[in-house]
Amino acid sequence: MTNNFSIQATAKAVPHTEIYNQDLTSLMATSDEWIQQRTGIKARHVATTETTTSLAVDVAQQLLQQSQLAATSIDLIIVATMSPDFLTPATAPQVQAAIGAANAIAFDINVACAGFVYGMQLVHQYLQPGQHALLIGSETLSHLVDWHDRRTAVLFGDGAGGMLIAADSDVPTGHWLGSHYATFGADGHYLTAGQQPRLNPWSTDTAVKPTNQWAFQMNGRRVYDFATTQVPRSIEQALTAAKLQANEVQSFILHQANARIVASVGKTLHLNTEQLPVNIAKYGNTAAASEPILFAELVAQHQIQRGDKLVFTGFGGGLSVGSAVIEY
Amino acid sequence: MTNNFSIQATAKAVPHTEIYNQDLTSLMATSDEWIQQRTGIKARHVATTETTTSLAVDVAQQLLQQSQLAATSIDLIIVATMSPDFLTPATAPQVQAAIGAANAIAFDINVACAGFVYGMQLVHQYLQPGQHALLIGSETLSHLVDWHDRRTAVLFGDGAGGMLIAADSDVPTGHWLGSHYATFGADGHYLTAGQQPRLNPWSTDTAVKPTNQWAFQMNGRRVYDFATTQVPRSIEQALTAAKLQANEVQSFILHQANARIVASVGKTLHLNTEQLPVNIAKYGNTAAASEPILFAELVAQHQIQRGDKLVFTGFGGGLSVGSAVIEY
Repeated sequence: MTNNFSIQATAKAVPHTEIYNQDLTSLMATSDEWIQQRTGIKARHVATTETTTSLAVDVAQQLLQQSQLAATSIDLIIVATMSPDFLTPATAPQVQAAIGAANAIAFDINVACAGFVYGMQLVHQYLQPGQHALLIGSETLSHLVDWHDRRTAVLFGDGAGGMLIAADSDVPTGHWLGSHYATFGADGHYLTAGQQPRLNPWSTDTAVKPTNQWAFQMNGRRVYDFATTQVPRSIEQALTAAKLQANEVQSFILHQANARIVASVGKTLHLNTEQLPVNIAKYGNTAAASEPILFAELVAQHQIQRGDKLVFTGFGGGLSVGSAVIEY
Repeated sequence: MTNNFSIQATAKAVPHTEIYNQDLTSLMATSDEWIQQRTGIKARHVATTETTTSLAVDVAQQLLQQSQLAATSIDLIIVATMSPDFLTPATAPQVQAAIGAANAIAFDINVACAGFVYGMQLVHQYLQPGQHALLIGSETLSHLVDWHDRRTAVLFGDGAGGMLIAADSDVPTGHWLGSHYATFGADGHYLTAGQQPRLNPWSTDTAVKPTNQWAFQMNGRRVYDFATTQVPRSIEQALTAAKLQANEVQSFILHQANARIVASVGKTLHLNTEQLPVNIAKYGNTAAASEPILFAELVAQHQIQRGDKLVFTGFGGGLSVGSAVIEY
């Protein structure tokens, strides 16, 4: 472990097909106005031919191309996902194979919407000086949604984002400054998805079918209360660990679950809107992919500069929260 | 990170229902003799009322009881599983809630059968002096099996095992000595399970049903070749990192995939049978749970002593391999 944490490349990939709020009115009783007012979402991308793996591979290929690094120089590949294509192989080994990163170890983590920020900590702890990691959040949540349930279906989208991270003391920029993580398992039942079928002939509970508790089920009020309470606390504790004040941070890259949650967090922490980028209108909630998709856009648009202090915060299923403070 | 790695407690939990080879002959054309000769397996436990979560909670409760540690002293809970009950919440947050480990962060990793040994590395890297982690492998593979496919169904079983690990310099015993990890993603298609349904209305591939590529599919020859080649290599590299010879190691706790693989590894590395404990006869292949189940039995039977040098090696889906060398 070193405090060097240099993000050398960042990229995103989203499915080709874009579904607008209006398109959903044929599937459920909803409206563009209602969705936008409650969530800030105008559209989301959904996988047609794409998979969680193909989106992650797309991101990995872009990261290598941007950094001009040989695939064999990658030491670690972590994919954060709550919507893998297979239970085995996991997503990360398939990325490893697709890009030819023969020297990388590769595994998946599942911390739902907080997965990417948890992965940042694991990368930080894993990397030795001179090593490189790919950290990717990739999701196809559209397969975990009941597209006739207007309370949840309007919220989610598919996509992937990632970073190539080096822990090289030769690199002039990029430092890990502090972090905070917490789990609230007792509230986990407020947000569930993907109950797996029970299929053995001896099980007393053989009634579990994919449509049963497969789709997202959410107590929206409770999850909103959790996020608006615990996200500010997590950010405050991470900033304390980093010995920074909120006004010294250029951008807070928050998980894009709902524009209202982002606004509430900003109000609690007295942040200005320039510190709180939001792109949920185009993508919906893409779980572990949301922070790196937002970050990749901000970097591409030159809204983030080298030397900026950044806070990444993920929160969601578990329930889980995590914040990482870095100098970019 | 510290080199202190003190296993303060270890426990296992298996479902109540035991299925003998003979019981399987009503489901498929097989025989007790055939299964025992090819695999060394006589019986396996299968979940009836138990779940991946309940087995993991059972292990966590035993670990706390053995160590007499307050649940609030736990800082980290990692569950390694390829057979979670839900995609969210993950298993570890549910364990956190069940035991009241309010100060622990909790997440799942998926490295299939190598998951527990990958988790050992993550725990090693995470823990600061004075901190405590629960590392648990928990699986209900019986739900990922086609119980009419005699090539795969006879191999797998359900169960959980775990360790309570401290990184306390006050603790006299327990050190991390070295490790080796590798991923072979290009061979991942030789062992697949749990393809997730694609259910969104826009997907061109809506035909994926739980029974399609849900169940384990394995190219037995290729996986055998992988294991018998890469496991000895991984162990040798981990021993080199630990500056140990194989004859200085008291026990090699290998993933229990097949008694023949264990025997082949032993032959390649010139190990004696006392160094190679095997318990697959009773449990079958329990993936990420197999090493800690075996370890818990050996500790309970006083076949492992404080000060012993131990190698833990996991291998399987990914394809993945990993070896950790510790002083117990």
